[in-house]
Amino acid sequence: MSRSLNRLSCTEIVQGIADGKLTAEAVTRDCLDRIDAREPTLKAWAALDRDRALQQARELDRAPRRGVLHGVPIGVKDIIDTFDYPTQMGSEIYKGYQTFGDAACVSFARKAGAVILGKTVTAEFAGMSPGPTTNPHNPAHTPGGSSSGSAAAVADHMVPVAFGTQTGGSILRPASYCGVVGYKPTFNLINRAGIKFAAETLDTVGLLARTIDDVDLVTAALVNRAPSLGKTLESAPRLGLCRTPLWDTAEAETRHAVEDAASRLSAAGASVREIVLAEEFSRLYQASRETINNYERARSMASDWAAHGDRISKVLGDRVKLGMATPQTEYVEALRLAERCRALVEPHLEGLDAIIAPCTKGEAILGLGHTGDPAFQQFWTALYVPTMSLPTHRGPKGLPVGIQLVAARYRDEHLFAAARWVMGRLGQG
Amino acid sequence: MSRSLNRLSCTEIVQGIADGKLTAEAVTRDCLDRIDAREPTLKAWAALDRDRALQQARELDRAPRRGVLHGVPIGVKDIIDTFDYPTQMGSEIYKGYQTFGDAACVSFARKAGAVILGKTVTAEFAGMSPGPTTNPHNPAHTPGGSSSGSAAAVADHMVPVAFGTQTGGSILRPASYCGVVGYKPTFNLINRAGIKFAAETLDTVGLLARTIDDVDLVTAALVNRAPSLGKTLESAPRLGLCRTPLWDTAEAETRHAVEDAASRLSAAGASVREIVLAEEFSRLYQASRETINNYERARSMASDWAAHGDRISKVLGDRVKLGMATPQTEYVEALRLAERCRALVEPHLEGLDAIIAPCTKGEAILGLGHTGDPAFQQFWTALYVPTMSLPTHRGPKGLPVGIQLVAARYRDEHLFAAARWVMGRLGQG
Repeated sequence: MSRSLNRLSCTEIVQGIADGKLTAEAVTRDCLDRIDAREPTLKAWAALDRDRALQQARELDRAPRRGVLHGVPIGVKDIIDTFDYPTQMGSEIYKGYQTFGDAACVSFARKAGAVILGKTVTAEFAGMSPGPTTNPHNPAHTPGGSSSGSAAAVADHMVPVAFGTQTGGSILRPASYCGVVGYKPTFNLINRAGIKFAAETLDTVGLLARTIDDVDLVTAALVNRAPSLGKTLESAPRLGLCRTPLWDTAEAETRHAVEDAASRLSAAGASVREIVLAEEFSRLYQASRETINNYERARSMASDWAAHGDRISKVLGDRVKLGMATPQTEYVEALRLAERCRALVEPHLEGLDAIIAPCTKGEAILGLGHTGDPAFQQFWTALYVPTMSLPTHRGPKGLPVGIQLVAARYRDEHLFAAARWVMGRLGQG
Repeated sequence: MSRSLNRLSCTEIVQGIADGKLTAEAVTRDCLDRIDAREPTLKAWAALDRDRALQQARELDRAPRRGVLHGVPIGVKDIIDTFDYPTQMGSEIYKGYQTFGDAACVSFARKAGAVILGKTVTAEFAGMSPGPTTNPHNPAHTPGGSSSGSAAAVADHMVPVAFGTQTGGSILRPASYCGVVGYKPTFNLINRAGIKFAAETLDTVGLLARTIDDVDLVTAALVNRAPSLGKTLESAPRLGLCRTPLWDTAEAETRHAVEDAASRLSAAGASVREIVLAEEFSRLYQASRETINNYERARSMASDWAAHGDRISKVLGDRVKLGMATPQTEYVEALRLAERCRALVEPHLEGLDAIIAPCTKGEAILGLGHTGDPAFQQFWTALYVPTMSLPTHRGPKGLPVGIQLVAARYRDEHLFAAARWVMGRLGQG
């Protein structure tokens, strides 16, 4: 293989190692070299140890094939426990903090043969206060957040795949801004043991990668199913086009991406039906983003707030304070609204292969002080449906703009198949 | 007050301190004295530090009233994080393990003025392999589990209230066996940040206390609502009597407790209607207890299993192995069945104040090698509904036998009101 090995996909790495054409060590070394070259600009890593990574790789090279991820380097968002790297939460409060063991997702990835390359930068406690990471397409722009380091590292070919988490839009927004594939599974499909909660009824563990197959492969290892690599739809899909009640807040490039995708996919044979949601949905954003998020934040951060409140950013501290003051009745009303919306969206998704929706407000915003608006991602997170961002378009500054693809709960594999069909028609933007 | 202060309820303690008739220190001291006297028999505590407890109490006595739990000593199940005591999970793997901070529930209790007295014994990782705790009514019998120490300590007047967690029957079974009030809230009503997961879609944080008001008071502090102390139903309740598909497996004392309760409450003016559940429910126990539980256990224990599998009991290790082998399709089917049953039980609960159901198979079993059968508690845990055990009856050996009271999701306060009405008619068994 003539390409630098850090540019390979997970599936190529696994195949190459199985065929005896590659070693895990060589792949890991090329990833580390890329990191050496680009990290001063990208600042995507919170903890990385060259020797530890290479040692894992060499052990895998000496051992029989351990599983479907044998030799695949993986990045881990820094709110997810790892026994061999500190978990620092993007906060000086947790500087050097060493967890007892691995999170469930990390342990399963390791068991399947992954090389835990290091920890990727997260916004403070997976919230809105950014870390130092820059956008690989233009370092003056945010990579998005809160899975900032995971998105940037994958986009920049430092690592083929990385774990992220999404409470609002923390996987799909950085994926869209950085031009990679983001995947937020059906709520709770990937086990959450060993992650620091932001808001427990919304937090979802997911993945960022450069191909749909790679997302599929890693997920398969975590949930105990066979990968469905390359599997696409047998016939042109029935698609929904859902602008959501937030449509008017989208920038021109996002409206263009969604409408252009719909029209090209329609021309390619897909049926595309406009989906208009009930009035309830217009209140969903507020209910999940404010009420549920704040109430649960006040609890997930209660101990940190009590002991180290002075070292928590104002933006996060304000949320904690709002959440402390939120009465239970308001919280339960918001939970009930979210539940009603989940039930109401199901009939829309039945009979469709997927819904196309805006993914972000627009391309990555200028500056590193804010990770962008989570509204379009939060909307679907609160509905518990599996959703992906696909890097199909570009904005006026030449930065990536993704579209969002959504399927019914637990139809994650079908979502992958639909996404392959869509990417096959639209291509990388 | 002439009673030893360790026999007071939380509401009495808070009132006594507010009235200047008591100090937190005096209450804590009497609890500690009771523990000194009885702990050699009960073995309810995993970690306890007399000085640390008294110091907290003295600080509260010097400070202005901190909140609704000012001066209340509380026990914490040993899978729940505390910054000032180790969290040892009932496993030698976690011997001396110190968490970074408090779990959300502990932090909120502390903020409201509770004295964190110490950590109570849990079965290994909140599973089925018992700790050393004995039943306060007869030390040859199990106290039930997995919240064994919390139930025994509360029943024996070592502490007025304690945190427990329930994945199957880990709060209500020991509550019933030890003759106290057990409360498993609506799923997720009490935030789970900072607890070690057993099975994340079932784990629920709850309470054990000697009165319904105490459960109400502590919950109110955690969820941000006003306590509804003493509030009972305005008129005689509409009750359901649900034997569940497991009825034939119940011992005579449990069948008697449920039928006696129904008949005496009916005589007191309640309407009692028999509830027969659809066929789906007969498969719920297997789906939740085996499929969901094992699959999620394999994940919550993945890291412990990989690094310390040789120090995990056979009974738990077997579950992990079964869970590792469970295909995702089976797991998702079980989740969907549980969801269908949740929807199916709602119409039964609407229009009722509460359902009466068996709580345990019978009185506490003889011996300390097994914590008893979780079937009757697991059934309702999987339905996400709030449920309580009330200590209304006794079995043939003179040991307590509880009845279970169940309400619709999020109607936890209404459940308390119904429970007060019921306890007012039946009295302590």
